[in-house]
Amino acid sequence: MTAPVTVELLAGSEGPWRIASISARTGEGLPAAGRLAMREGTAGEASAPPRGGWRLRGVAGHLRYTTRSEATALAARQGGLGRPHARLAALIPIRKCAAWWSLAQDERRAIMEARSKHIAIGREYLPAIARRLHHARDLGEPFDFLTWFEYAHGHAAAFDDMLERLRATEEWRLVDREVDIRLTRETAGLG
Amino acid sequence: MTAPVTVELLAGSEGPWRIASISARTGEGLPAAGRLAMREGTAGEASAPPRGGWRLRGVAGHLRYTTRSEATALAARQGGLGRPHARLAALIPIRKCAAWWSLAQDERRAIMEARSKHIAIGREYLPAIARRLHHARDLGEPFDFLTWFEYAHGHAAAFDDMLERLRATEEWRLVDREVDIRLTRETAGLG
Repeated sequence: MTAPVTVELLAGSEGPWRIASISARTGEGLPAAGRLAMREGTAGEASAPPRGGWRLRGVAGHLRYTTRSEATALAARQGGLGRPHARLAALIPIRKCAAWWSLAQDERRAIMEARSKHIAIGREYLPAIARRLHHARDLGEPFDFLTWFEYAHGHAAAFDDMLERLRATEEWRLVDREVDIRLTRETAGLG
Repeated sequence: MTAPVTVELLAGSEGPWRIASISARTGEGLPAAGRLAMREGTAGEASAPPRGGWRLRGVAGHLRYTTRSEATALAARQGGLGRPHARLAALIPIRKCAAWWSLAQDERRAIMEARSKHIAIGREYLPAIARRLHHARDLGEPFDFLTWFEYAHGHAAAFDDMLERLRATEEWRLVDREVDIRLTRETAGLG
């Protein structure tokens, strides 16, 4: 992916996704809301948060840690967003602690992949679990990363299994805020 | 540096820095202006561009390519911004081409340091040349990076020498827009 895509996640009373649950796992949670819309917008222009709801923003752009060999292996297997059978989604906003951000690039990479196998674990669940990562830290958002996952009902158990493995890693000890939002949609098509 | 610092560079008729020159090196330039102010602001809140002038924004935050050993070597030698004798400054906004951003992390690092020695060249000029890098791509800005340099009159030739060496590298072939802005200030103190 070359050009950065600015993405807004708008939770309120509208949107193709019904919010099934919002669970605070670490730190402060997020307010309840009924529905969620994902909007690919223009960088620098922010929508108003929906009335009584909330808005999160991030940028899907260039690879920050992934090597070429990893990227090639991922590309060979991964599925895109918006697949008609993928009626379940999860949005996992995460913030990492100051200690993580004070590390140098090679130290973060060592924790993330050499010791925590983050990329390798995710790859095992391709193409069933489609994923898009949004970077939010430079935007001054309350979370550093917003990861969006889409999958079919038949892969819901696999998704939970993947999350459990990631949350057991050394990398996750540096997560100081995490919210787990589950969503469903009734109709096919792009969310 | 842990918490990201959002920085605005405001060119117009006000500010402690007098703009001595604005030179388009590659691609489109920037309009002439008389003075420049650097404002450390709040992420997500943008000042209006000065009347008849322009505004650039970036974020100084965590290390994107630097290893721990490099960071330690840099920290042992580098000077901070705002040194009273550093009455000269340069602002070099750069955009890199789509081919750069489509590379994986290890490929960009190989071009930048293994083959272009970007970090090593910069280190040779420490502490004379103080430097702060601002990342702008995720903000949807017209440039990807804004680098700010401060140095004393006695090191102006060294600064030009450093720039010449960097611009001769493989990395610079992937720069598709570059503007070179030189500034001076008359009084001591923070810019």
